[in-house]
Amino acid sequence: MDYRVVADVQGQRTIVAVFAEGDEALAGLKEVAEAENLSSASVAAVGAFERATVGWYDLEAKEYRDIPVNEQVEVLSLLGDVARGQDGSVAVHVHAVLGLRDGTTRGGHLREGVVRPTLEVVLTESPAYLRKTPRPEYGLAVIDLAASS
Amino acid sequence: MDYRVVADVQGQRTIVAVFAEGDEALAGLKEVAEAENLSSASVAAVGAFERATVGWYDLEAKEYRDIPVNEQVEVLSLLGDVARGQDGSVAVHVHAVLGLRDGTTRGGHLREGVVRPTLEVVLTESPAYLRKTPRPEYGLAVIDLAASS
Amino acid sequence: MDYRVVADVQGQRTIVAVFAEGDEALAGLKEVAEAENLSSASVAAVGAFERATVGWYDLEAKEYRDIPVNEQVEVLSLLGDVARGQDGSVAVHVHAVLGLRDGTTRGGHLREGVVRPTLEVVLTESPAYLRKTPRPEYGLAVIDLAASS
Repeated sequence: MDYRVVADVQGQRTIVAVFAEGDEALAGLKEVAEAENLSSASVAAVGAFERATVGWYDLEAKEYRDIPVNEQVEVLSLLGDVARGQDGSVAVHVHAVLGLRDGTTRGGHLREGVVRPTLEVVLTESPAYLRKTPRPEYGLAVIDLAASS
Repeated sequence: MDYRVVADVQGQRTIVAVFAEGDEALAGLKEVAEAENLSSASVAAVGAFERATVGWYDLEAKEYRDIPVNEQVEVLSLLGDVARGQDGSVAVHVHAVLGLRDGTTRGGHLREGVVRPTLEVVLTESPAYLRKTPRPEYGLAVIDLAASS
Repeated sequence: MDYRVVADVQGQRTIVAVFAEGDEALAGLKEVAEAENLSSASVAAVGAFERATVGWYDLEAKEYRDIPVNEQVEVLSLLGDVARGQDGSVAVHVHAVLGLRDGTTRGGHLREGVVRPTLEVVLTESPAYLRKTPRPEYGLAVIDLAASS
C-alpha cells in the first residue's frame, strides 16, 4: 500500500491510497490514518478483492456474524469513516458492496478484504476530532458528537 | 439526530450528522438541510437500519414501487444529494444499498429508513443553488443546471 | 449531459454533471474530464439507467466478463475516479451498483450505462496527476503513485 497527501486546504487533507495484491484493506487504512494522525475522515474506494469477509451485526448477540466471500470480487463500493475510540486509538469503520462473477452482490461491514489486483482509496479529512463512545446496550462504540471537537 | 458543521472553506461546508436509534433518515437529512439552508450538497452515509423501504421508479406508472425491507440491515451505502424544488423547498434525493443477515443486498431510492443503532452521514456543500424542474413526461423533478446558479 | 464547475478551492474543482435520457455515462464522464482537463478526480453519482452492462474482471483470461442488465434500474451508487493513462489519455474508472424492480441488485465495473431519466454526478478534483501504469501480469493498468505527481 502506497499513499500520498494530494491536497491540504485549511486542515482538510485529501489522501489517495493505492493498495496492491495481497494488502489487507482495513490494516492499510488504519496504517494511513495512524501515520497521518487522522481523527476525522471519510473513506471511499473501488477496486477488487481476491477474498473478503463482511459482517452483519447481530444486536441480540452483540457481535458480528461473519459472511465469508471466498472468491475474486469487484469492490463496488467501500464507504465509511475514520474516527477515534475513547482511548484515542484510530477507529476505521467501512462498509463494502462486492460484485461477484455473475453480477450479483454481497455486502456488509468490512471485516477483512485482501486486495487483488488493486484498490483505489480516497480519504477526505475533516478538521474535527470525532470520538466514539462505547454503548453497552449495543455492544458497539458509536460516534458521539457531544464528546467530539 | 445530532449534527455539526466541521468545516467551512469558501462556502463549502462539511457537516457530520449522527443519527440515533429510531431516527428516520430522510426526515433527519431534510431537517439538517433546512436548518443549514443547504441548496446544493452531496450526501454519503453508512450505518444500520432496523427497517427501511426502498423504491424502484416505474416510468410507465410514474410512481415508485415500494420494496419493504422489514429487518435489521447494514446500510452499505447511502448516496445522493440535496437540491431545491421549483418552489424553493429542500429536496433530498438518496439511494441506498442495504446488507441483509445473509450478506445479500437490497437497494433502491430511499423512501424510509429507521436507524438502529447509528447512521453516520457526511454532507458536503457546494457553493451553488441546484434547482429541480418538474418533468411531466417522467412524473419527476430533475436537477436542471440551466435553471440553477 | 450538462455540467457546471460549482467550486474551485486551490485547484480542487467540484463539478456537477447532469445526464439526460439516452446519454451514456462513461462517454459523458470522459467528455467532462477531457473538457476540464482533469488528471485526478473522484466520481460519485446516483440516478437511473434504462440499461447497462457491468463487468467482472477475469484475472485468468485477463478480460472483463460482461454482465448485461437489460432493464430499467436505479443507479444506487456509481463510484470511481479519473486518472491518466501512460499516454496521457483520460482514464475513467467507475463501479456501479444497480437496483432492479424487485429490490435486488447487480453490480460490477461499469462498461456501459444508458441514462433514463437522469444521472446526477459529482466530480471532485484533486490537485494531482494520477498516472496509470500497465501491469501485464493483470492485463490492466493501475494507478501508480510513484509515477504520479
